[in-house]
Amino acid sequence: MSRQWPGWLIVLEGADGCGRSTQTATLKAWLERRGYAVVETGLRRSALAGDLISRAKHGNRLGRTTMSLLYATDLADELENRVLPALQAGSVVLADRYIYALMARALARGAEQDWVDELLGFAPQPDLTLYLQTTPEDRLQRSLAKDPHLDYWESGMDLGLSPDRFTSCLQYQNLLQAQYEALADRYGFVKVDGAAARNETHEQVREAVRRLLEGGEELAGA
Amino acid sequence: MSRQWPGWLIVLEGADGCGRSTQTATLKAWLERRGYAVVETGLRRSALAGDLISRAKHGNRLGRTTMSLLYATDLADELENRVLPALQAGSVVLADRYIYALMARALARGAEQDWVDELLGFAPQPDLTLYLQTTPEDRLQRSLAKDPHLDYWESGMDLGLSPDRFTSCLQYQNLLQAQYEALADRYGFVKVDGAAARNETHEQVREAVRRLLEGGEELAGA
Repeated sequence: MSRQWPGWLIVLEGADGCGRSTQTATLKAWLERRGYAVVETGLRRSALAGDLISRAKHGNRLGRTTMSLLYATDLADELENRVLPALQAGSVVLADRYIYALMARALARGAEQDWVDELLGFAPQPDLTLYLQTTPEDRLQRSLAKDPHLDYWESGMDLGLSPDRFTSCLQYQNLLQAQYEALADRYGFVKVDGAAARNETHEQVREAVRRLLEGGEELAGA
Repeated sequence: MSRQWPGWLIVLEGADGCGRSTQTATLKAWLERRGYAVVETGLRRSALAGDLISRAKHGNRLGRTTMSLLYATDLADELENRVLPALQAGSVVLADRYIYALMARALARGAEQDWVDELLGFAPQPDLTLYLQTTPEDRLQRSLAKDPHLDYWESGMDLGLSPDRFTSCLQYQNLLQAQYEALADRYGFVKVDGAAARNETHEQVREAVRRLLEGGEELAGA
């Protein structure tokens, strides 16, 4: 497939608490030092639906189908209005989560693969997807260290796995993990060790990004 | 297919200006006089996304994919929170437009049939879909009589068919008409003459609804 635009779409994926936001920020700074124009994106950022999702989640009243559709709407708006123009202008777009996070969550809640694939089929394939691998236990510890109150949705409380939030969270994070691993194989994610020291993880991220950007000419004709 | 709930889902479809709202209101009153509990629904009514659509359309900045997804989100929320509970409680739900209006609009804008089918596959099949047939010319006259300012979206201005709103509207309404006719065949709509006198149209609507409700026992086992 030939590249459709002069920019690059780089995605960082991984379950909550894997260190994704830190790595995204560090990568952004590194790219900017090298002279690239960088645009950050992610979930719940669209002008259209970002706030709405936050408010709707607060009420814990979102049905599963509605939640998937609302996140897809948010992503479509962000793509149409910010991401595609940035790619066309030659920027590096860093996405702190993308369609794969939506897929993992929907599939963990019993959505059909075909439905999810079609629903999110409007989104362009990234040039590179980095997957920060960590264990559910690691992530839970990191989350708890940051905030002792476990989030309703991150704990998968809507799934009814357990009335105890801690138990539910661990079980839900295991379900998500299985979905992410399957997506990693299916979409060729580049795996990065998210459990390593922060600098070491960043070195792995940088290496993959360097290969992408410096091999840009070859990729263009591939 | 066996009926999944004790209530009935009755849909009125037809392009803007076909007299749908009048027929829905008249049908509701007629059903209530006969002792049925009636719940009205339609597009842009959900607590979650209804207002958002209205605001986003006002700005004329919605991309096509985003528009389809946002309407689907609105419908999913309305289904989960109002329609399904009403059907389970044995009410008659009258929908002033349903998935078919979303399909017609998306298909007229070049969306792929498979994508649209999967996207809206979460919505249950109605027990009866009434299709109010009128000509684009009739509808345009009715719309203009009500409001001399033609709506941006109803005129399909986003399609770039013509810079003249009147010309664009007529062309767009013809495109929609072709989509509705194809959907009518595909989903077995009951066609009603929307160009007839209001009472005559209503008589046709009532007749189809009477057959559905009084044949309820047979349908239950079909």
